[in-house]
Amino acid sequence: MLKLDMALPTHTTKEYPDLSHLPHVVIIGGGFAGIAAARGLAGKKVRVTIIDKHNFHTFLPLLYQVATAMLEPAEVAYPIRTIFGKANNVGFRHAKVREVVHARNVVVLEDGVEIGFDHLIVATGATAAFFGIPGASQFAMPLYSLADARKLRNRLLISLEEADASSETSPMSLNFVIVGGGPTGVETSGALSELIRTVIKRDGLRIDPSRVRVMLVDMAPRLLTPFPEKASDYAKRELERMGIEIEFGRSVVEVEERAIRFADGERLKVAAVVWAAGVTASGTLAHDLQTTSGPGGRVRVMPDLRLLESENVWAVGDAAAVPLGETEFCPQLAPVAMQSGRHCAEQVLRVLSGEPTKPFAYRNKGIMATIGRHAAIAKLPGGTVVKGTPGWLAWLGLHLWYLVGFRNRLRVMINWTWRYFDWPSGPRLIVADAETAE
Amino acid sequence: MLKLDMALPTHTTKEYPDLSHLPHVVIIGGGFAGIAAARGLAGKKVRVTIIDKHNFHTFLPLLYQVATAMLEPAEVAYPIRTIFGKANNVGFRHAKVREVVHARNVVVLEDGVEIGFDHLIVATGATAAFFGIPGASQFAMPLYSLADARKLRNRLLISLEEADASSETSPMSLNFVIVGGGPTGVETSGALSELIRTVIKRDGLRIDPSRVRVMLVDMAPRLLTPFPEKASDYAKRELERMGIEIEFGRSVVEVEERAIRFADGERLKVAAVVWAAGVTASGTLAHDLQTTSGPGGRVRVMPDLRLLESENVWAVGDAAAVPLGETEFCPQLAPVAMQSGRHCAEQVLRVLSGEPTKPFAYRNKGIMATIGRHAAIAKLPGGTVVKGTPGWLAWLGLHLWYLVGFRNRLRVMINWTWRYFDWPSGPRLIVADAETAE
Repeated sequence: MLKLDMALPTHTTKEYPDLSHLPHVVIIGGGFAGIAAARGLAGKKVRVTIIDKHNFHTFLPLLYQVATAMLEPAEVAYPIRTIFGKANNVGFRHAKVREVVHARNVVVLEDGVEIGFDHLIVATGATAAFFGIPGASQFAMPLYSLADARKLRNRLLISLEEADASSETSPMSLNFVIVGGGPTGVETSGALSELIRTVIKRDGLRIDPSRVRVMLVDMAPRLLTPFPEKASDYAKRELERMGIEIEFGRSVVEVEERAIRFADGERLKVAAVVWAAGVTASGTLAHDLQTTSGPGGRVRVMPDLRLLESENVWAVGDAAAVPLGETEFCPQLAPVAMQSGRHCAEQVLRVLSGEPTKPFAYRNKGIMATIGRHAAIAKLPGGTVVKGTPGWLAWLGLHLWYLVGFRNRLRVMINWTWRYFDWPSGPRLIVADAETAE
Repeated sequence: MLKLDMALPTHTTKEYPDLSHLPHVVIIGGGFAGIAAARGLAGKKVRVTIIDKHNFHTFLPLLYQVATAMLEPAEVAYPIRTIFGKANNVGFRHAKVREVVHARNVVVLEDGVEIGFDHLIVATGATAAFFGIPGASQFAMPLYSLADARKLRNRLLISLEEADASSETSPMSLNFVIVGGGPTGVETSGALSELIRTVIKRDGLRIDPSRVRVMLVDMAPRLLTPFPEKASDYAKRELERMGIEIEFGRSVVEVEERAIRFADGERLKVAAVVWAAGVTASGTLAHDLQTTSGPGGRVRVMPDLRLLESENVWAVGDAAAVPLGETEFCPQLAPVAMQSGRHCAEQVLRVLSGEPTKPFAYRNKGIMATIGRHAAIAKLPGGTVVKGTPGWLAWLGLHLWYLVGFRNRLRVMINWTWRYFDWPSGPRLIVADAETAE
């Protein structure tokens, strides 16, 4: 019998030994911070449960490529259970959390089930900030989940089809407005412009390119404010070279279903408004945990990442206002999320073994943004700015490196290579849902 | 200027020359039949417009692999515009058709726009047949579109998560019922059983395998009725070896949201009912074109594929009751769709050049069905049945060959190879839509 089994292809089998005697660490959220925390606890003398409303981890930095039909959803997402396929002490619960009852150390799920914890790590991230602008949360399209990306992709492709169909009778104009000149806004507008030009050319859409406008608007006077001014100028030049109109000092006062209104009174008909204006932790579970919250609705934490006045509740990543020095806070970036998640796991283990905790220290790895093929900017920790092809190659390499799962890395690499040499016939599918597709 | 252009990467650019003087052939439907017809007209002296409510062609024979998380939607779908990227005389219209007004030779789209034609090819396919069984159209899950496949995949994966979550309190049972023992039912139940066993093992789901039942029910006394009895027995043995319960002579009288009722009175709670009981062209656009319809609601056509009593409206593929000999009709299979589409294109060109048409003659290429790894059956034109590994290899090769797009073929081949050697960490994502995902 044993012999026969060995002749069959071997599959890793995951078994849950009885770990009920071990301390239970619950992690809410399977983003960069939550995954990093769970990795730090994998194989240790704790029992870990990750709770997330999605059964997959999403690689947010590449969502804009899903939205612009360069990558497929499955290439930037990875099942959380699979990430921890070899860690017998890490479990997953596919659920939404209703509330945390700190006094009783329980997490209450939407269906009323209670999950007790010895330590709780809140890694719930942030969501798009709409700043109370009327219509924005309803009609503007953020890029903060796989569903957001799919929705934006469908909207873009359907708009192009509509414009093509209108060419026979009364050709319509297509305006795309990206609100926000940070990395997401810059990357999305670049990719969007490339998508539109490519699709029109390759698929022979009967759309006059002069009727298509891609606009990037920001209240600030320059793009990519965390970068030095020279880098901002470079990004602006590159985007303009791609035909993108950039307007500074413009604020949005209302978003309608197919229009946008600016503070100066202009009302523009649009095919889509992409919302890249910033994030907030307000209105999220993390936010509910404290009566007084930190900047951007984030949870205030002590230097060791524990919630103020808590022994066993921790917050990491975008959800937390992680101290940086005496008066500042860490930016809401992927490296901060990963580092804080990892640090938090270490401190939980320290507390459990009776050791004192250590304060979190952010190791600045620099920041980067890409604009298009051969055009990217990286600001290294020392302040040096790398741009052009070297910046672009660094961007490619780092994103591939941090993408979860060998298979995804391979697939994305193949896709990017393919696209580099000849734009692919890629995944330009308008996939509606069963409910609406008929 | 020319020199500079040549230094840039060359992309195929599609341009629409003015073809308004050429006869206009409208094709409704971008499935096997419609695509085959358009291919036959590409580059000829006609102007072609394909109308489809989806902007992509779907490779239906592999939909069950999307539903069982083996392939991604983009791997079995291909944008229609891209298929005809090099054919300047083939256009595409992303729209639903409301009706065909034969008397005026116009197709009326849902938005009221009218498209005139000189020749019309109806290739609207078929849909799942529910035979009027209460609840079936609402709650049973067919596999006839990409949206269907995604919906079923989400349901399967969510059911497994629910069962895992229930393990702590009161472990729930999971019953999956596949209705219909034809190729779709056989393939889906095999793949479903593999998916469940794999996911439970690999992801360490806390589900007792004895609580999971996969049932295949059919009113007929054997599986795969178009095959000889020996082949049916082989398929039955293979499926049973995979743990699938097969019940013959059972008819379904009602489908509820999470239950199924049989004629013998049994009511079974289910996680999902997969509907593979057959197809019909009733209630579709093709069906509306005739007052008296053929078998399965199909449109009656003359031997040259023209609609009875029509000069310039043709029907092909699953939508048409294509004559086979004096009294029979062709089965609704992909080879018939492709051959009839191609034949129709030739006949349209003949009519346009004043030549007489030729009758359609189906060249039987055999039929095949796969059950799992190394287990497939093919019935060759002569009646010879090939089974086991040779049948399986033939199945793999033929499906790869007919899959549209080199890129898709490559990706599917990589996926299959990967899976063959070690089950992949594949695309087990529960991707809801923005509307419902929150």
